[in-house]
Amino acid sequence: MGSPVHRVSLGDTWSKQVHPDIQSERHMQSFDVEQLTKILDGGAQNTALRRKVESIIHSDPVFSLKDNYFMTQNEHYEAALKKKFHIQMLAQRLGWSEDSRELGYAYRSLSGDLALGVHNIFLKSIRSLGSEEQIAKWAPLCNKFQIIGTYAQTELGHGTYLQGLETEATYDAATQEFVVHSPTTTAIKWWPGGLGWSATHALVQAQLICSGARQGMHAFIVPIRSLQDHSALPGITVGDIGPKMEFDHMDNGFLQLDHVRIPRENMLSRFAQVLPDGTYIKLGTAKANYLTMVVTRVDILLGEVIPMLEKACVIAIRYSVVRRQFRIRPSDPEAKILDYQTQQQKLLPQLATAYAFHFLASSLLEFFHRSYSSILDKDFSLLPELHALSAGAKAMVTDFCAQGAELCRRACGGHGYSKLSGLPSLVTRVAASCTYEGENTVLYLQTARFLVKIYLQAQESPGSTSQRSLPQSVAYLTAPDQTRCPAQRAADFLHPEHYTMAWAHVATRLIKDSAHHLQTLMKSGADWHEAWNQTTVIHLQAAKAHCYYVTVKTFTEALEKLESEPAIQQVLKRLCDLYALHGILTNTGDFLYDGFLSGAQIDVARTAYLDLLILIRKDAILLTDAFDFTDQCLNSALGCYDGNVYERLFHWAQKAPTNTQGNPAYEKYLRPLLQRWRSRL
Amino acid sequence: MGSPVHRVSLGDTWSKQVHPDIQSERHMQSFDVEQLTKILDGGAQNTALRRKVESIIHSDPVFSLKDNYFMTQNEHYEAALKKKFHIQMLAQRLGWSEDSRELGYAYRSLSGDLALGVHNIFLKSIRSLGSEEQIAKWAPLCNKFQIIGTYAQTELGHGTYLQGLETEATYDAATQEFVVHSPTTTAIKWWPGGLGWSATHALVQAQLICSGARQGMHAFIVPIRSLQDHSALPGITVGDIGPKMEFDHMDNGFLQLDHVRIPRENMLSRFAQVLPDGTYIKLGTAKANYLTMVVTRVDILLGEVIPMLEKACVIAIRYSVVRRQFRIRPSDPEAKILDYQTQQQKLLPQLATAYAFHFLASSLLEFFHRSYSSILDKDFSLLPELHALSAGAKAMVTDFCAQGAELCRRACGGHGYSKLSGLPSLVTRVAASCTYEGENTVLYLQTARFLVKIYLQAQESPGSTSQRSLPQSVAYLTAPDQTRCPAQRAADFLHPEHYTMAWAHVATRLIKDSAHHLQTLMKSGADWHEAWNQTTVIHLQAAKAHCYYVTVKTFTEALEKLESEPAIQQVLKRLCDLYALHGILTNTGDFLYDGFLSGAQIDVARTAYLDLLILIRKDAILLTDAFDFTDQCLNSALGCYDGNVYERLFHWAQKAPTNTQGNPAYEKYLRPLLQRWRSRL
Repeated sequence: MGSPVHRVSLGDTWSKQVHPDIQSERHMQSFDVEQLTKILDGGAQNTALRRKVESIIHSDPVFSLKDNYFMTQNEHYEAALKKKFHIQMLAQRLGWSEDSRELGYAYRSLSGDLALGVHNIFLKSIRSLGSEEQIAKWAPLCNKFQIIGTYAQTELGHGTYLQGLETEATYDAATQEFVVHSPTTTAIKWWPGGLGWSATHALVQAQLICSGARQGMHAFIVPIRSLQDHSALPGITVGDIGPKMEFDHMDNGFLQLDHVRIPRENMLSRFAQVLPDGTYIKLGTAKANYLTMVVTRVDILLGEVIPMLEKACVIAIRYSVVRRQFRIRPSDPEAKILDYQTQQQKLLPQLATAYAFHFLASSLLEFFHRSYSSILDKDFSLLPELHALSAGAKAMVTDFCAQGAELCRRACGGHGYSKLSGLPSLVTRVAASCTYEGENTVLYLQTARFLVKIYLQAQESPGSTSQRSLPQSVAYLTAPDQTRCPAQRAADFLHPEHYTMAWAHVATRLIKDSAHHLQTLMKSGADWHEAWNQTTVIHLQAAKAHCYYVTVKTFTEALEKLESEPAIQQVLKRLCDLYALHGILTNTGDFLYDGFLSGAQIDVARTAYLDLLILIRKDAILLTDAFDFTDQCLNSALGCYDGNVYERLFHWAQKAPTNTQGNPAYEKYLRPLLQRWRSRL
Repeated sequence: MGSPVHRVSLGDTWSKQVHPDIQSERHMQSFDVEQLTKILDGGAQNTALRRKVESIIHSDPVFSLKDNYFMTQNEHYEAALKKKFHIQMLAQRLGWSEDSRELGYAYRSLSGDLALGVHNIFLKSIRSLGSEEQIAKWAPLCNKFQIIGTYAQTELGHGTYLQGLETEATYDAATQEFVVHSPTTTAIKWWPGGLGWSATHALVQAQLICSGARQGMHAFIVPIRSLQDHSALPGITVGDIGPKMEFDHMDNGFLQLDHVRIPRENMLSRFAQVLPDGTYIKLGTAKANYLTMVVTRVDILLGEVIPMLEKACVIAIRYSVVRRQFRIRPSDPEAKILDYQTQQQKLLPQLATAYAFHFLASSLLEFFHRSYSSILDKDFSLLPELHALSAGAKAMVTDFCAQGAELCRRACGGHGYSKLSGLPSLVTRVAASCTYEGENTVLYLQTARFLVKIYLQAQESPGSTSQRSLPQSVAYLTAPDQTRCPAQRAADFLHPEHYTMAWAHVATRLIKDSAHHLQTLMKSGADWHEAWNQTTVIHLQAAKAHCYYVTVKTFTEALEKLESEPAIQQVLKRLCDLYALHGILTNTGDFLYDGFLSGAQIDVARTAYLDLLILIRKDAILLTDAFDFTDQCLNSALGCYDGNVYERLFHWAQKAPTNTQGNPAYEKYLRPLLQRWRSRL
């Protein structure tokens, strides 16, 4: 097969040869890696297009990521702005439209290191919340970057709970203006991307007050910086929120409003309107708008979150076949660390998880697209399930990816702590995803509420809510259940029906238990809210089991579609088996609790699991190659395709500012310290 | 009681008042916080001394940490060097000796942000590995900082496995010199602290070759930088390894040696010597030297690692009584987030863990000091147990502290992602401790080896190895065991004897199982090494359960000594109960496996656990106050004693370079972008 040229592309003169320890991993190919790449891309055409875009991006030095690890926050922002500026021109020249596949691939190959990302959210919000006139006015300004927008929702003291936002927009009928104001310190807008240094306009979520009545949250377009000289407009205090764990390229900002007046036309009015005299009119429901949030959550999983775990796996697994340490037997040479059971146990379940999540998120996205037309026709019946699925999937995927990326980082020992490995920035970025777009505990509990509701409905009218009428993803709740798992031999545990059933059983039991706990508390006098708060720990557990079940189920369904590719189907099935069994073995208590599995069965499942590790280990490098990340995109001294880990780390380190800028403190501190004795001699 | 002045010490004009939401938490004190602080400090005298040192440090602006979050790597190093320089003079003036309690407290209050930390390890290594003449020559040079030392062991391609190091020191009898050389890229020394920019001398661990024979690792003093102008000496390539996840203040470096010649006298020769003619002589065993490593591991737990979890708890718990979000009932005001069961479930087990680890590490240190004299008398019988205990404790404590600190960070939502919260740097620092001073998986497996060995010995000669003759920490392995846990009601699970017994039972079973797995494989033909590698996943699990047992046991023993302080004993007992039950509930499978606990008992244990959360929540702020960290030392906008979270975050953000240095990219990118349309109009 040889090494596809686009992979070995850093062009270092000393890296003409692939390291023999990684080369040997690619000698025997039990499946066609290129074919798997195409499946992951959703077709050969996509793969070809992606590679074409990558080669355009990588051939342009403006887009190079190589100095990323050496920049200050200010430099990072400037570089990201330059890239954004440059890619806009490129897209214009090549005819890549805003939502095109090409631009998506370009972002992927730049690992999202672009400024002004929220400008697009500003525009999308106007499109979904604005009237036709408003869209006609603002969209062209956005498209041509005559203004730069941001979306200002969270406040210093308020996050997930929208109703708690304090910013006020009070209508003044005398001037036909809204007075937008931050009444307290906690009302200061905090976090919006692009607000710190870039935005000229903010879409501000504020409590609408007209004719003395509070009408809840509405969106207002507020000019914040002069289009002449970019200075803050009167009444505006705006700036950057300072250093963060990562995302230096993004100028997250704060915004304090002191009785800022904006025209009546600046309230986005697709769903509500304020007449000149101050009369408030509701114009229907924003339910369809809800779908945007749902799609956004799945989009970030596929576009941002899962690729970070994939990259972490690529880096850690490639490094683990080059790194050698200890001898398994005293007479052997030092072993590749991937040959140790403990290293396999760390990394291979992460690899399986990355694949499992790829199929989960793809299937969710497909489900959304299928449901989209009925929702546009104002049939909202699928929305609760979509919401519960996307909330739970977002929480589980970001949690597991964050945990998995850190595991990969630590599995690289000291070198994983160097930013040059690429792993620290992956870890700290993916960690953020557990908080943004909905905090994970809050999201899991939203899924739990849906599950409890469905379960109680099914209980109340068992006739009408037969399995058929339950939403698809929860149909298992009323399906025939087994009380004991029939799997006895290790091979039995590799039957998808057995482990899928096992997860269905546990999820069902936990949902039942959590509903019963809730009901028991309410019967003993607690009101619903109190009872809910006192049972959230159990609801969380139930929601997690449900999400795990959905992932296992989705993975097995994806496998069924690969019958024409038996070799790929086989290697992916092992990953599916590993994912399911790893989940069982890290949650044995849930399966032992009611005797569904016995201790002896757990031992057998573990044997099956440990045997899988050995099988998957053989294909591990190929399975990471299949993600087809270019070396430039990985930007890792440890993770390049050629395996020349140590040379690269040594070369990269020498380019660090700590080596190129000279010792700032020698003359000031070290020389006086070292030589003060000399003068006294 | 009032607020001790030393706590509210940041002196911000706007923070004269303690936030009412945190003040109310301190109204009712169920125990004497000051008294608990004294217990944690090991006596009232220590508390007084610590506070005296803190007030000296905090009154000196050189030691301020307030700009820490705004510095580049180079600035951080310079600031840390300045502090080191300054504290040396202070110590000299005040008569604080190198190992004094005062200096320890000073380091604590500076959160270790000092350069040249490894200089001291260089000196200690010379003291333990050098001859009397060598100590007489080098120690005074170190003490006066006429030279600056570093300790160079790990290499680019080699870490934990000492025998794998490649650096060579070949004796040349003709000149009576050693030729120290890095034969490959992987042999380049990598990571030593202080090597990057500071050190003039390195203690280099290298393979000794004399008269053609390889004699294993020995230590050599190699001059690396000129004492005149700090330039690298001939044959030396030295520099900084570049950006890391944290520890910017430390100049971790690389060192490549090209046939560097050093005099014969520079090989440290307490335990081995090379005569002028090249004859190699061994001078006894370095076993006592081993003890240094063991003590170092426990020292870093008490001095670095556990305080990081404590600080994370202080910050997250204080924030959680000021932050309000959602309403538990629609009619209520927004609730303090610490009143949610899920937030309690995140934070309070971490608080319990911090306390548990404090008592674990203190007890280990005491054990070492008790054993020290017998070891100095060359009685090494306690060394295997000491080693197993310290290895396991280091692995468990760093693992749990890393996980716990990240949990605390995430529990603060978006603000936990801001560096100004103090949490990101705690998380990324404590993460490093999982790798340095012994990688955790390797350490756990060392403990596992000890456990298997002890268990097999006890099996082979059950008569001679009665409970009495087993090392104290593993005596439970042969103690009478129960097959069923007798606890039935929630109150039963709060009996230390029940949960200690439960942990002993599980640890014993897992150790037995892992030994049996090993033996079974060997009986079926595998050699020991292969069998070991194929069972490491199970050994890990056993070692973890053993460490958990030891912590629970140690905590209960510490409680017994607090009978004269019943109120403190009561509140700490709740933490001990929580720690034990949290462990059981996150590992239910281990307890259900053989029916030691039933599903129904797990439910009861969970009830006991959830009830404990409510009780501990009431004292949560007091329990964090008791750690008595000053605001300066916490250096957190979220975690100050006064609870003025939002004002502080807003003020601190405005001092960030992103706000003080002006937008670097407006003229270059934003203005052209925003105004290019204008010229065409």
